[in-house]
Amino acid sequence: MGEDKIKDLGIAKLDYDREERTGFPEVVFCERKMDEHLVKIYRDLYETNGSVFGTRASKEQYEVIKAVFPEADYNPVSRILKVNASVKTEGIGNIAVFSAGTADIPVAEEAAETAEYFGGNVVRVYDVGVSGIHRLLSKQDIIDTANVIIAVAGMEGALASVIGGLAKVPVIAVPTSVGYGASMNGISALLTMINSCANGITVVNIDNGYGAGYVATQINRLAER
Amino acid sequence: MGEDKIKDLGIAKLDYDREERTGFPEVVFCERKMDEHLVKIYRDLYETNGSVFGTRASKEQYEVIKAVFPEADYNPVSRILKVNASVKTEGIGNIAVFSAGTADIPVAEEAAETAEYFGGNVVRVYDVGVSGIHRLLSKQDIIDTANVIIAVAGMEGALASVIGGLAKVPVIAVPTSVGYGASMNGISALLTMINSCANGITVVNIDNGYGAGYVATQINRLAER
Amino acid sequence: MGEDKIKDLGIAKLDYDREERTGFPEVVFCERKMDEHLVKIYRDLYETNGSVFGTRASKEQYEVIKAVFPEADYNPVSRILKVNASVKTEGIGNIAVFSAGTADIPVAEEAAETAEYFGGNVVRVYDVGVSGIHRLLSKQDIIDTANVIIAVAGMEGALASVIGGLAKVPVIAVPTSVGYGASMNGISALLTMINSCANGITVVNIDNGYGAGYVATQINRLAER
Amino acid sequence: MGEDKIKDLGIAKLDYDREERTGFPEVVFCERKMDEHLVKIYRDLYETNGSVFGTRASKEQYEVIKAVFPEADYNPVSRILKVNASVKTEGIGNIAVFSAGTADIPVAEEAAETAEYFGGNVVRVYDVGVSGIHRLLSKQDIIDTANVIIAVAGMEGALASVIGGLAKVPVIAVPTSVGYGASMNGISALLTMINSCANGITVVNIDNGYGAGYVATQINRLAER
Amino acid sequence: MGEDKIKDLGIAKLDYDREERTGFPEVVFCERKMDEHLVKIYRDLYETNGSVFGTRASKEQYEVIKAVFPEADYNPVSRILKVNASVKTEGIGNIAVFSAGTADIPVAEEAAETAEYFGGNVVRVYDVGVSGIHRLLSKQDIIDTANVIIAVAGMEGALASVIGGLAKVPVIAVPTSVGYGASMNGISALLTMINSCANGITVVNIDNGYGAGYVATQINRLAER
Amino acid sequence: MGEDKIKDLGIAKLDYDREERTGFPEVVFCERKMDEHLVKIYRDLYETNGSVFGTRASKEQYEVIKAVFPEADYNPVSRILKVNASVKTEGIGNIAVFSAGTADIPVAEEAAETAEYFGGNVVRVYDVGVSGIHRLLSKQDIIDTANVIIAVAGMEGALASVIGGLAKVPVIAVPTSVGYGASMNGISALLTMINSCANGITVVNIDNGYGAGYVATQINRLAER
Amino acid sequence: MGEDKIKDLGIAKLDYDREERTGFPEVVFCERKMDEHLVKIYRDLYETNGSVFGTRASKEQYEVIKAVFPEADYNPVSRILKVNASVKTEGIGNIAVFSAGTADIPVAEEAAETAEYFGGNVVRVYDVGVSGIHRLLSKQDIIDTANVIIAVAGMEGALASVIGGLAKVPVIAVPTSVGYGASMNGISALLTMINSCANGITVVNIDNGYGAGYVATQINRLAER
Amino acid sequence: MGEDKIKDLGIAKLDYDREERTGFPEVVFCERKMDEHLVKIYRDLYETNGSVFGTRASKEQYEVIKAVFPEADYNPVSRILKVNASVKTEGIGNIAVFSAGTADIPVAEEAAETAEYFGGNVVRVYDVGVSGIHRLLSKQDIIDTANVIIAVAGMEGALASVIGGLAKVPVIAVPTSVGYGASMNGISALLTMINSCANGITVVNIDNGYGAGYVATQINRLAER
Repeated sequence: MGEDKIKDLGIAKLDYDREERTGFPEVVFCERKMDEHLVKIYRDLYETNGSVFGTRASKEQYEVIKAVFPEADYNPVSRILKVNASVKTEGIGNIAVFSAGTADIPVAEEAAETAEYFGGNVVRVYDVGVSGIHRLLSKQDIIDTANVIIAVAGMEGALASVIGGLAKVPVIAVPTSVGYGASMNGISALLTMINSCANGITVVNIDNGYGAGYVATQINRLAER
Repeated sequence: MGEDKIKDLGIAKLDYDREERTGFPEVVFCERKMDEHLVKIYRDLYETNGSVFGTRASKEQYEVIKAVFPEADYNPVSRILKVNASVKTEGIGNIAVFSAGTADIPVAEEAAETAEYFGGNVVRVYDVGVSGIHRLLSKQDIIDTANVIIAVAGMEGALASVIGGLAKVPVIAVPTSVGYGASMNGISALLTMINSCANGITVVNIDNGYGAGYVATQINRLAER
Repeated sequence: MGEDKIKDLGIAKLDYDREERTGFPEVVFCERKMDEHLVKIYRDLYETNGSVFGTRASKEQYEVIKAVFPEADYNPVSRILKVNASVKTEGIGNIAVFSAGTADIPVAEEAAETAEYFGGNVVRVYDVGVSGIHRLLSKQDIIDTANVIIAVAGMEGALASVIGGLAKVPVIAVPTSVGYGASMNGISALLTMINSCANGITVVNIDNGYGAGYVATQINRLAER
Repeated sequence: MGEDKIKDLGIAKLDYDREERTGFPEVVFCERKMDEHLVKIYRDLYETNGSVFGTRASKEQYEVIKAVFPEADYNPVSRILKVNASVKTEGIGNIAVFSAGTADIPVAEEAAETAEYFGGNVVRVYDVGVSGIHRLLSKQDIIDTANVIIAVAGMEGALASVIGGLAKVPVIAVPTSVGYGASMNGISALLTMINSCANGITVVNIDNGYGAGYVATQINRLAER
Repeated sequence: MGEDKIKDLGIAKLDYDREERTGFPEVVFCERKMDEHLVKIYRDLYETNGSVFGTRASKEQYEVIKAVFPEADYNPVSRILKVNASVKTEGIGNIAVFSAGTADIPVAEEAAETAEYFGGNVVRVYDVGVSGIHRLLSKQDIIDTANVIIAVAGMEGALASVIGGLAKVPVIAVPTSVGYGASMNGISALLTMINSCANGITVVNIDNGYGAGYVATQINRLAER
Repeated sequence: MGEDKIKDLGIAKLDYDREERTGFPEVVFCERKMDEHLVKIYRDLYETNGSVFGTRASKEQYEVIKAVFPEADYNPVSRILKVNASVKTEGIGNIAVFSAGTADIPVAEEAAETAEYFGGNVVRVYDVGVSGIHRLLSKQDIIDTANVIIAVAGMEGALASVIGGLAKVPVIAVPTSVGYGASMNGISALLTMINSCANGITVVNIDNGYGAGYVATQINRLAER
Repeated sequence: MGEDKIKDLGIAKLDYDREERTGFPEVVFCERKMDEHLVKIYRDLYETNGSVFGTRASKEQYEVIKAVFPEADYNPVSRILKVNASVKTEGIGNIAVFSAGTADIPVAEEAAETAEYFGGNVVRVYDVGVSGIHRLLSKQDIIDTANVIIAVAGMEGALASVIGGLAKVPVIAVPTSVGYGASMNGISALLTMINSCANGITVVNIDNGYGAGYVATQINRLAER
Repeated sequence: MGEDKIKDLGIAKLDYDREERTGFPEVVFCERKMDEHLVKIYRDLYETNGSVFGTRASKEQYEVIKAVFPEADYNPVSRILKVNASVKTEGIGNIAVFSAGTADIPVAEEAAETAEYFGGNVVRVYDVGVSGIHRLLSKQDIIDTANVIIAVAGMEGALASVIGGLAKVPVIAVPTSVGYGASMNGISALLTMINSCANGITVVNIDNGYGAGYVATQINRLAER
């Protein structure tokens, strides 16, 4: 890796070698970043890449960025804050994103929009939790045609196991912090997914929709290359 | 409760009032009991009740009891050790016992035999884990005709949630210690079941087949009275 | 299940087949739902069912719904928000709800009102924690006449074990998040109840009054059919 | 503390000042001690104090000590191994030891014999778990006449809370490792006792009968001085 | 216990038999109580007992009570809110309260004022944590003259073990939620105290100054009777 | 799924539809299976598929199977027990398996042999833990040419994060139970991997080499189709 | 230690013997201190030592202190609040502080400024997390010339292990609470560091930059004496 | 690092560059190594370095190595197995090793012998737990003259905090798995040490005497260079 591809903003080292090295451009994790730093980072990335994609942005951060980039686009559900990063009309492959409940949709959307930004076609199937299994079973065709599946679920997180048994392709399980009491902010769903009796399931961190969208993109690209 | 119904064997207080008070005779939890104490308890219960039903018995304990009661009957899978406690031919009602994997069968059998001993009809459906969901769906008729369902599962324990969504009657979920790594000897399955997104599910302790059989009997009796 | 009975509101899939399939109408879990979504769901359910029953509603959500349905009824203790869902005068059977402390009453009321909404007679016995055991013992007649008992307790959660020893019928234990320090927001009470030395006890998630009311209704109905 | 009262055996520093400083002679914790070390320690304490009291001794350690001190006395239940440490016929005061189940008796006996060795009168009430509350209530007179009470319980450990509500004097709660599944070797009972809703309860480590007997002795002596 | 001594305020059952049964009057746990309920309880207790003692009261609750009882007395450190409950000038016995750090003082004060309210003499020694052991050692005389000692500490909670080794009398250890990171809001200090290598130590819940003051009073009374 | 493809051996339901449905033949998890059951399952699979592949087999189980199938092949390191399941000479694609320490090799081998059995080319790089980072960096070419990477590590499990930063393709992280003390049998390494700061990492259960080999095969096949 | 060197402010005991005893002056932990107490402590320390150094100060606390000491100096990143405590121009030795991400900088700065205040030369290397390992490797010269290294990292905390493998000198690992989901506020990073496969690593509490700076100073002084 | 300094034995990669890179020769962690591998590694290290130092060796492993190297030296307490690795008569500096109880001595000895093998002078002070604080205080001179201190303690692990308050030099805290019940095999002592209120304390993994000896050597060398 060329050291000279690392640009030191003082507040952060932007890694412009990343796209070449990993095939993915730098993405901004907005949470807990101070306003001035956020603006600095968005500005620098915009100047270099022509577009910026940020996750976990608050409504307040959107206002800040919008003041600088009036064309900024914010989705309050997925909390993704984009500048000039509209999805290409023609994505490649096929990534299916399933969510168990409506409360899991923010995380599912973070995954879906991430995968779209990185160039994949995404099919969304939400609110198909295992307590009404027929809702899920009626989507077998979507399971059968995907290159990779993202399964997002909080509470007991059983969705991933059932999809794992229905699919031939890898299932990326995303536990969410949705739940209460013994869900322990998603630890319970995480454990469920890690212990899944089904094959083909791997797990990312709680609420990590971005991480799931990233890996799904890697797999989708491999399938379509 | 009449104090005079408590018989003090020195090593234990046998509660002969229990059957009248709760509708269930005294049952022996054999695990960790010393041989001489076990014999003493089996002898006393036999003399009073005419039969004895014990759970969590080892093969060694079976040998010990058999030396005293040649007619003793032992099931190495469920680890239930009975003396003169054969199931009546005509049980009441309908209790369905489902298990996720073959490794969960010992716990499922403890539940099933307990329910049978207490006078219920039991239907067994084993090895129908959620990673092959169609195995479970083909048993919808059994789910529809039961008064109460026991769902036994280790690893990620998702079985209970799926059955909960398919049933009108209460589902008693029994997590098992089957699994490895992050299953933490059943804690993971327990959390899954407690956090279930489906309604109608209640949970007992890890591997507590007896407890599930007991509650199922209570519900089955209420339904048939 | 008929797929056509699932109504997709975009923000949620309402399951109008549920009542037929499970015997229970759809109920709204209000917590964390956005105002506009809540109104949409209440409106759709009201138009179809003629009544709506929601749990975990905030005072703010009540104001929002009241603006649309002036007849909306809200209980700040149980946090249940109903529209045209007044309890029938003549419920069936007998469901007893016990709470250990006064701080546990919100959860106990969620359970009690849920059971009433689903058509059961409910008897409430609150503030009978085990540190003053005679308060509980004086209610033996209520224990003896119930079809099913709900035991709600936080802190160390010992109430369920004591009631379990006094009752012939199933006891549904509800741990609450009441407590401090090592109560770990109800995990401690949950563990107590799962490890209960008494028979006939099953457990639901922390603060899950609705779930307990649901299962109690199932059992009560079985007993009265 | 006089340094010269510490006798360095190489393998351990025996603290002969302890009795003067704390009012209690040195006691041997036998578990995991090597045979030769155990003999050395027993010999030295015997020569200085004229008697030895050891806890957590195995049958094998008893054989080793017996070979040196033929008068050694071993209780396989409490696992206490004494040399010339028979209890005086006339103890002082009144210490009540309650246990929930028969499996808790080894820990209860460790507490009881420790308290007796240190000069207290002990009343034992075993197998009075809360699932049969009347067994406990019939012992109110023992609760009323004790200076201090030790409550020993595994599984869900609810015994301490109930006794706490019935007593005027301090209750020392001893969780035991009796149980399975979510009891997590006594952690569950420990949490129950720490979170007790009753006043007057303090807690020692899991299975720490000795520790409970020690504190009970301190309180009993204060009451009788 | 006479049932007629339980006064049902609707919102709570006040236990006027408590003082006779346990030797302690009813105390109010103010935290999370609604204003109107708090006033109702204070009024009723005041009318019956002539004084009220409440713990965990907020400044806001003080304002509410003061509006009704202008003579109400509030300590913002201990958060104790009293009406006509001034300490008698002549307490009995000797209770020593030690705290490790200044941040532990609120909990220590809750313990100390509780013990004083119940009639004991209290000696306070604060800010004597083990990282400056000589501060503690210089208080040996206070350790030697106490009937019972309360040791309050957060962070690693080592204070109790050191005092345990210096004292002849019982040490009641109170872990506090003071600390950060791996202190896990006091769980760490609780574990330290439960595992103490010193004898004579028993433990109450995290931040439970009231509970410690209560038990200390029981022991102090026994010593002085 | 055709129900008729499920063969019920009594002790297990063999799923002969699996290969068609998922692209993978049935594999035997040998651990905790009784000898007679194991033989029955191996025999049935052999008759149907012509070969058998089993994981987590003990040396004793090998002896049992060898008595029936003299050609059985056992690897004591990976604990894989095969009958007629030799790897084809020409696998497809490129799966790289890295292990941190030598103690992690059994899990790495389970992954590698699984992937080979399912038809993939496997490159092994063992003992390249991050404490000697140059050992890993010298293998950049292997990282660059793989379709998918399996990273196996116990103790602190940092290997996955470093590889994640060096790779363009998905990294499947396998925590192992190697370690002691606070490694808590692999929980620590699992947490490390789930929290990885690198992108492209997903995680399977502790010691689940088989699961990693399975998913890697899915990805490798997608890349090569 | 001379007792007379302890100055009792009522609200705290200031330990003016500390510098002589340990070689370090008293430092103020500002978090949760009340304004009036903070002023009192700053005033007393200033009068005695001529300078004050406080950690974990809020912006509000800075305003309070500034009103009294207009020359007060506050760093909102490190949250260190100094009065007349400017770093000497010529520090001794060489302490290197590495941080994994930009979000870890506040903790890293707390460590760095602490070390500087205590007289050490500090070299900072931030944003060199292991997911871009070359950023770290390019700093080998800094690793080689340090007397001691502080490695600050949240999320999975792998930085310490990699540095440990590259360094000859002690590495003090500081886990931070940066992360989400299964990071459990830093517990995950703490476990990673405690289980490190590299030698020479020791660990302090989560976010304890001050503690790391303190120990690094001790080591740096030993190296330079 | 030169790749050619890594010698690949097939079963392990021996790192002969380590001594140059880190100043420490390769050490063997014997636990769980197979006999033939152990012999291979000992032989290779002996041929290259002229001596071998191994930790966590069992008595059985000693017999195996002794058969090859009759001069092998084994300490059953520390479980260190050396070949030709006798300590030089003249070590440098001053490393003090303190242990709380006699049961902690094996870990303390592993630390002490490691430090001696790496060339340091070691002073041992064992059985000075905080429950008899004067035993520790009488060793102030040893604390005052050490370059670095290792504090080894199980159970509640308070020793490190007290020594931290008495010392000017770094204290390396080693929690041990000594204890029972809530000690959770050393997790409790680990938490105590991480949360220590004293400055200058850093922590290594449970029972990691070797790791402590290693870091202590690094510091001791820095102090003496």
